[in-house]
Amino acid sequence: MTSERENVTVLGLGLMGTALATALRDAGHPTTVWTRSDRPGPEGTTRAATAAEAVGASPVVVVCVLDYRAVRDTLPGDLAGKVVVNLTTGTPDQARELAAEVDRRGGRYLDGGIMTTPPAVGTPQAVILYSGAADLYEETESVLEALGTATHVGADPGFAALFDTALLTIMYGALTGYLQATALVGREGVTATDFLPMAQGMLGTVASFLPAMAGQVDSGDFTSREARLDMQISAADHLIHATRDRGVDATLLEHVKSLIERAVAAGHGGSDYPAVIEVLRKG
Amino acid sequence: MTSERENVTVLGLGLMGTALATALRDAGHPTTVWTRSDRPGPEGTTRAATAAEAVGASPVVVVCVLDYRAVRDTLPGDLAGKVVVNLTTGTPDQARELAAEVDRRGGRYLDGGIMTTPPAVGTPQAVILYSGAADLYEETESVLEALGTATHVGADPGFAALFDTALLTIMYGALTGYLQATALVGREGVTATDFLPMAQGMLGTVASFLPAMAGQVDSGDFTSREARLDMQISAADHLIHATRDRGVDATLLEHVKSLIERAVAAGHGGSDYPAVIEVLRKG
Repeated sequence: MTSERENVTVLGLGLMGTALATALRDAGHPTTVWTRSDRPGPEGTTRAATAAEAVGASPVVVVCVLDYRAVRDTLPGDLAGKVVVNLTTGTPDQARELAAEVDRRGGRYLDGGIMTTPPAVGTPQAVILYSGAADLYEETESVLEALGTATHVGADPGFAALFDTALLTIMYGALTGYLQATALVGREGVTATDFLPMAQGMLGTVASFLPAMAGQVDSGDFTSREARLDMQISAADHLIHATRDRGVDATLLEHVKSLIERAVAAGHGGSDYPAVIEVLRKG
Repeated sequence: MTSERENVTVLGLGLMGTALATALRDAGHPTTVWTRSDRPGPEGTTRAATAAEAVGASPVVVVCVLDYRAVRDTLPGDLAGKVVVNLTTGTPDQARELAAEVDRRGGRYLDGGIMTTPPAVGTPQAVILYSGAADLYEETESVLEALGTATHVGADPGFAALFDTALLTIMYGALTGYLQATALVGREGVTATDFLPMAQGMLGTVASFLPAMAGQVDSGDFTSREARLDMQISAADHLIHATRDRGVDATLLEHVKSLIERAVAAGHGGSDYPAVIEVLRKG
């Protein structure tokens, strides 16, 4: 089997680049690596002398460097026949511009957003979002699957970065709420471990709310079927006071209250919480 | 069966009190109701002339009124042999004080936090948290199950209100992150419905992070195994810029960045995100 695996090149040997090269090697891909410093690659990979030599060694080139400037500096001028899979963190517009640049250099481009940390790379828990032409994604999928759970999110090369930003926003919102809640119950002697099942249950409950909320957002009809925003102001106040009374930072809830107040002021008193998206859109 | 169901009294006929009385009636409990206004109860319930008469009609008295002052004003001086189930929104301390007061009046006390809205009451989706003596909870459970999915969270009567506040904090954090993310992808023409599966998947991912995080919180050892906080500052900046560039409010992420910066300043540069709980505790 091993000999049938495609050659793959990895440019960049930071923590993430090294994890990517290791996962490709473990999956049996003959792996060539290169980085600007003289750092060696993982055992069992081939260290090229130059970026151009590394790119020459494989049809698929995975790039994970510091920023988009480094991507442009690293990639050689001639990318004829190459598939460039760029996993460097950037914006949707940077991804779109780079896709056009790779096209000018004769290559084809997939962008990726890695939704995990280096230790998880190569496991099914490592979700990586990809965007770019669907046929190119399908053609490259067997390589991408070595890195984790691959998900194609659209032909627009900017979409992986866009969804990466969006999903990390959900993650930070949920985790910050969780840690604030855990600090609160901790004030009354409840351990994080004891609170865990309820916290996880609440995330499941929130997930169950989303289909109805997505329907309200897409229709633009936020008419309350659950809890009117004008009634939620005093509820938010109550949460803020209960939190502050225990010496816990309530900034997250103050933001929530401000969003609710601004939505009510904009005429959404009789709407459900998703109406605050109209305030968020005026950011 | 119906004739074997316990008599239950509901004090308060706001939206929630009416939903509670309706659910009890539907479950076959002979239900007596009372409220300060002359509003009638749901069909099939018995409207008492006074609160004392209503309380006299049943061994279990469910209270859901405006606030704790109204609870004290409504409950008669003699509660001998009565189980008072108070579902009025309040703080843990208010619940503890009321528990002591009900005890002085000869009754026994359970506090409850309703984690849902009136339309869901009486369905399994309606989670209601209860706190108070475990034997009293067990004795009353058959009545409580008529109102939704009952969960006993501790003997301390303040715990239902405490967990209610904590879980709503998680809910608002997650929902605000979700709506901000949905606003962001919406700027690039992605509908909320198209974004839904990924958003729900991210909540599941966050839930899978929590056991390790709870372990870090309880041990106080936040040493990074995932993503160092000093590396997350630039990641947070990146998210803030990507959000602002699309005209979407980034206040939630600015709060996250501020928490990270303060945790790093406090010596947590090499810690994972849960270390921000130490900043939240200084609120």
